[in-house]
Amino acid sequence: MNAINGKRLETWLKELAQFGLNEQGGIDRSIGSQADLDARNYLKTLWQDMKLDIRTDGIANLWATCPGTEAGLKPIAVGSHHDAVPNGGKFDGAMGVLMATEVLKTMQESGIRLRHPYTVVSFTAEEPNPFNLSTMGSRSITGKITQEMLRQAKNEEGRKLEDAIRCAGGDIARLPGNCLKPGDLDAFIECHIEQGRNLYDRNLSVAVVSRITGIYREIITVTGEANHAGTTIMANRHDAQLGACELSLILEDVVKRVNRRDVVATVGKMNVYPNSANIISGHVELIMEVRTPDRKILDNILKEFQMRLKEVETRRGVYFERKVNLDQAEVVMDDQVKQALAAGCSMVQPEPAELVSMAGHDAVHMSHIGKTGMLFVQSVDGISHSNREFTRMEDIEKAANALLQAVLRLDQESGKKEIQE
Amino acid sequence: MNAINGKRLETWLKELAQFGLNEQGGIDRSIGSQADLDARNYLKTLWQDMKLDIRTDGIANLWATCPGTEAGLKPIAVGSHHDAVPNGGKFDGAMGVLMATEVLKTMQESGIRLRHPYTVVSFTAEEPNPFNLSTMGSRSITGKITQEMLRQAKNEEGRKLEDAIRCAGGDIARLPGNCLKPGDLDAFIECHIEQGRNLYDRNLSVAVVSRITGIYREIITVTGEANHAGTTIMANRHDAQLGACELSLILEDVVKRVNRRDVVATVGKMNVYPNSANIISGHVELIMEVRTPDRKILDNILKEFQMRLKEVETRRGVYFERKVNLDQAEVVMDDQVKQALAAGCSMVQPEPAELVSMAGHDAVHMSHIGKTGMLFVQSVDGISHSNREFTRMEDIEKAANALLQAVLRLDQESGKKEIQE
Repeated sequence: MNAINGKRLETWLKELAQFGLNEQGGIDRSIGSQADLDARNYLKTLWQDMKLDIRTDGIANLWATCPGTEAGLKPIAVGSHHDAVPNGGKFDGAMGVLMATEVLKTMQESGIRLRHPYTVVSFTAEEPNPFNLSTMGSRSITGKITQEMLRQAKNEEGRKLEDAIRCAGGDIARLPGNCLKPGDLDAFIECHIEQGRNLYDRNLSVAVVSRITGIYREIITVTGEANHAGTTIMANRHDAQLGACELSLILEDVVKRVNRRDVVATVGKMNVYPNSANIISGHVELIMEVRTPDRKILDNILKEFQMRLKEVETRRGVYFERKVNLDQAEVVMDDQVKQALAAGCSMVQPEPAELVSMAGHDAVHMSHIGKTGMLFVQSVDGISHSNREFTRMEDIEKAANALLQAVLRLDQESGKKEIQE
Repeated sequence: MNAINGKRLETWLKELAQFGLNEQGGIDRSIGSQADLDARNYLKTLWQDMKLDIRTDGIANLWATCPGTEAGLKPIAVGSHHDAVPNGGKFDGAMGVLMATEVLKTMQESGIRLRHPYTVVSFTAEEPNPFNLSTMGSRSITGKITQEMLRQAKNEEGRKLEDAIRCAGGDIARLPGNCLKPGDLDAFIECHIEQGRNLYDRNLSVAVVSRITGIYREIITVTGEANHAGTTIMANRHDAQLGACELSLILEDVVKRVNRRDVVATVGKMNVYPNSANIISGHVELIMEVRTPDRKILDNILKEFQMRLKEVETRRGVYFERKVNLDQAEVVMDDQVKQALAAGCSMVQPEPAELVSMAGHDAVHMSHIGKTGMLFVQSVDGISHSNREFTRMEDIEKAANALLQAVLRLDQESGKKEIQE
């Protein structure tokens, strides 16, 4: 069995982590920053040395391709993203791009040629960013963000996204010609840190992702009656802030009763108006979010939530106005890719593991273009989006070897199936 | 018995309400605005016609004095304020100033000369205002706001308070020489709308204020752990927003159990951080306020509050940091002034009524300078700080007559007592 070179991958990870490294040991590498441009140049140099065909698309996603041996087969793309949240970690995104590169390097050194073209991809701006467009690269290239939206986007200092993209080597005008259609890729595989503590708690290195959670969000306005905080007796109040508090605790209670690790809910955003110590709040705006891999569970949660909110409305004389803001269905990973990944994992870890991804990823959008799968690697303590994020090299090596085996298997099976069909 | 001229008072109220009247029928008359300056000129013209000695002090409070017949007696001051909250009402403040004027006008017409000087006062910026200094006039003139604080105050557009005060005829440099010391006034009486629904619900016109509520405020920081709203399972969360929600509902519950009309509590201000839909909040800042006329009740509330917060801290793994921001004790109104007001009320309303003021007033600060009392007039539906604020002329007339009788009685009794002592 061929094995990847862990030392080399570790060196690459360390070298890439120099771009945007701050004093707290975290990474600042937002779209269009000098660190972003440096990271792009670093990756392109790696790929040039490997004689790959390098392409920067309209939204500045990077693609580095090695041709396959069999004509007419679409590429197997493997990768992730190289940007980071402010003071983020060294592995979130970067690890997936470098691991895809290492898998190819190992194949090149071992003289292995795939039947399919093999493409390493690094997406633009996957993380929440100053232009308010996360998974920007994968959403743009799959046609889910319009050119108009991209042209209007600015950061808080008024810098146009368009300019940041041009600095990074893209050009929004080219985007329509670049967009991927279903079937343009044979498969897409993303290897990513788990960003949760499932693997850490079970002392496992890797898991195959079965599906990526659905995300459901409502913007809720709570309307009560603003009044004098001194002269309004408790019994006469219609306090919107207290209504919003009950709503938040009800949501938590309803979701906790479901009692599943893959069902969570949060009120992360809440604004109170007029937000003055001596005025009973007249209205509150908040965002509630539920993540669940199962539509039925979501429906049951919303049903009980609604019922209990009605009771609060009656009792408090406040009114909840609910507007669905996001209703992104769960995405199921492709069976063939999953099986290839599971087979790869079985070579590095005796215990099989499958997880639902509770975070969104570029893979969500790529799943509409080709067969898509994901591999998770353990995050120490489950920490992510933090300078304290860490993933052990031994786990990364295992994941890279599993990925290599999965790619080899998929390359064999996927072609055959297409021919059989 | 002499009676005030209700028609005249009504005319004055209507005339003064033209300054700052907006399209919704509310009053915009904040400190330093054109409406504020117009209102000041209107009042000064009224007082000039009455041949009063008009003085604008360093913080631009207006004083209009008619001399007394007996040498060595300090003035009986009667009044309120003429500023308004944005889109505020026509009676809050303005009614008290014009009623004090009408009482004097009636005495002048009836040939009544008081033994004490009689001073109509209209305070600067009693309401919450863009310079963040409410009861500005009464606090400044009683030495509770330093010159330095006044000099540093700016509104959001960067306009200096100092300039607004100068426009209004004041001069902060003059303030130290103007400050009132205990004993500089014989008495202060403020007549004000109730801003609550006690009198409305009991179908009464007027009430003597027994005391002005104590106001206690804490700035509370709730510290939890910011984390990914998708990958952090419900059981592993330390959600600061939910901690703050429980705190707010506990405060409400504890205070509702006290079950007194004069004990209220509010969380009117609350900010969630980082305030993002997909991040479990790591910390929350809020202001909790309790108003109670009784220190013991406050102590009991705080004791139970603390006990129940401890339980939340343990259960949720969040931490509440509490800092007292305001601890203003209740102010008890002067017995002699109260008796004079009660006697005045008995002539216009058979049923005696005494109320605790749940709002702060200029009278709180004036009580440190001289014997102080307050008279409340019914607010229809208890509404205030709103363009829907309304008080009926028949109630205002009754209050003005009660005030006149109270002034006459106090003028007689207060002098005697001083001589006896």
